[in-house]
Amino acid sequence: MSADRQESTKDAFHRGNFWLVQPARGAHRAGLDAMLLAAAVPTDFAGTVADFGAGAGAAGLAVVARCPQAHALLIERSPEMAGFARAGLSLEENGGLARRATVIEADLAAPAAERSAAGLTDNCADFIIMNPPFNDERDHATTGALKRQAHVMEGELWERWLRTAASLAKPKAGLALIARPASLPEIMPALKGRFGAAQLISLHPREDRAAIRVIIRAWYGARGKLSVVPPLVIHGPSGNRFTARADDLCNGAASLFGD
Amino acid sequence: MSADRQESTKDAFHRGNFWLVQPARGAHRAGLDAMLLAAAVPTDFAGTVADFGAGAGAAGLAVVARCPQAHALLIERSPEMAGFARAGLSLEENGGLARRATVIEADLAAPAAERSAAGLTDNCADFIIMNPPFNDERDHATTGALKRQAHVMEGELWERWLRTAASLAKPKAGLALIARPASLPEIMPALKGRFGAAQLISLHPREDRAAIRVIIRAWYGARGKLSVVPPLVIHGPSGNRFTARADDLCNGAASLFGD
Repeated sequence: MSADRQESTKDAFHRGNFWLVQPARGAHRAGLDAMLLAAAVPTDFAGTVADFGAGAGAAGLAVVARCPQAHALLIERSPEMAGFARAGLSLEENGGLARRATVIEADLAAPAAERSAAGLTDNCADFIIMNPPFNDERDHATTGALKRQAHVMEGELWERWLRTAASLAKPKAGLALIARPASLPEIMPALKGRFGAAQLISLHPREDRAAIRVIIRAWYGARGKLSVVPPLVIHGPSGNRFTARADDLCNGAASLFGD
Repeated sequence: MSADRQESTKDAFHRGNFWLVQPARGAHRAGLDAMLLAAAVPTDFAGTVADFGAGAGAAGLAVVARCPQAHALLIERSPEMAGFARAGLSLEENGGLARRATVIEADLAAPAAERSAAGLTDNCADFIIMNPPFNDERDHATTGALKRQAHVMEGELWERWLRTAASLAKPKAGLALIARPASLPEIMPALKGRFGAAQLISLHPREDRAAIRVIIRAWYGARGKLSVVPPLVIHGPSGNRFTARADDLCNGAASLFGD
């Protein structure tokens, strides 16, 4: 199915600095997760950022919109979502931004030869960002055996994606990933020996509520230890308004780790 | 060396609710870490709490001081520190409290038979708390090869202590540990398949500073997922005063997870 045969919307991000074409409904619509993940890239970043599981391109385009010297590889397995990403890049509204982004249809869990044939060569990325599709899974959607199977598959996917990230990373490349807190026990062993000097930040819907997501940033080949930085609180004590910091991060006006 | 041959101090905790005899100097003096670890035990806890690496008994006694139906096993490998713990239990100031605590000299990394001979039988604990000695290591104290060796040993120690914790745990027993954030990659795999439904809280010296410690609480045999709860901030924006919450936790007037 191509993008133009499915109902879609055209949505502004970063207060109109860039636009996406997205499916009108469903879990694949981009939002806060993608914007906060993109905010983990330092503002002065220059080079190639590989967006793993790019969907319609939200996180990758948020990086190129904030970092004028960045180029994004929007890597997506689903031909349908890759079609939406291409449709987004061809929007007039995105102007010159689209020249700094390339869509690559590839399965990040596939062997190196297959990835390479799809245009993804080892040692190509200065930064990798990943927002795996199962972040959006509803916990109540599956039960019993299916749920356990999904859990096992999730552990394998982190290991495969992070192995691929290590293959694509240039020396000292950055990595940022967004995940549910429950995934930390799967992620930490998969980072080991690959990406170090990690910083972990937890994202809390309100000051007094448990985290709904964590973002980890780390560096290829670095030996430094894990640190836990102060959390991000998304909403004020009541109502749906974002905190000032969350609003800035969501709109490309700040970076998550202050760099 | 016995306690009475080394310089010692007699120190009040929980605003005078219990007292410890401690070495006058050095890294083995108890402080905030032990008090916050003890605060992870629910206030209505009843049963046996095993304090792994008890030192002079600070964390274990803090649990029995706050939880009137708790009994503590103060497990310590060092004969010298076990001597300080015994000296603390014999203080008049501790009154009836001392009857709810027992000192056991044992190496928690030793095989089950050796532990058992020391008086530590499997399936004896309703809750386990652990504050490993290397939490106090200064990072600059060792360099190069020694540092790497210490790191490897730390990973092994978490695995051994958590294996022992699983052996000593009764069904559904609780576990709480305090660690440096850098230890999380070693701790998480060692919890797996043993203790689940974990809650992680990070302890920040100030609101805007990286965490100096994390506390994890989990339950033996539980299948629930890891959650990350809002952090504890220890000091206000300036000066050395504790925040009201840290002060309550440190003095046995509150519990870390609100239960």
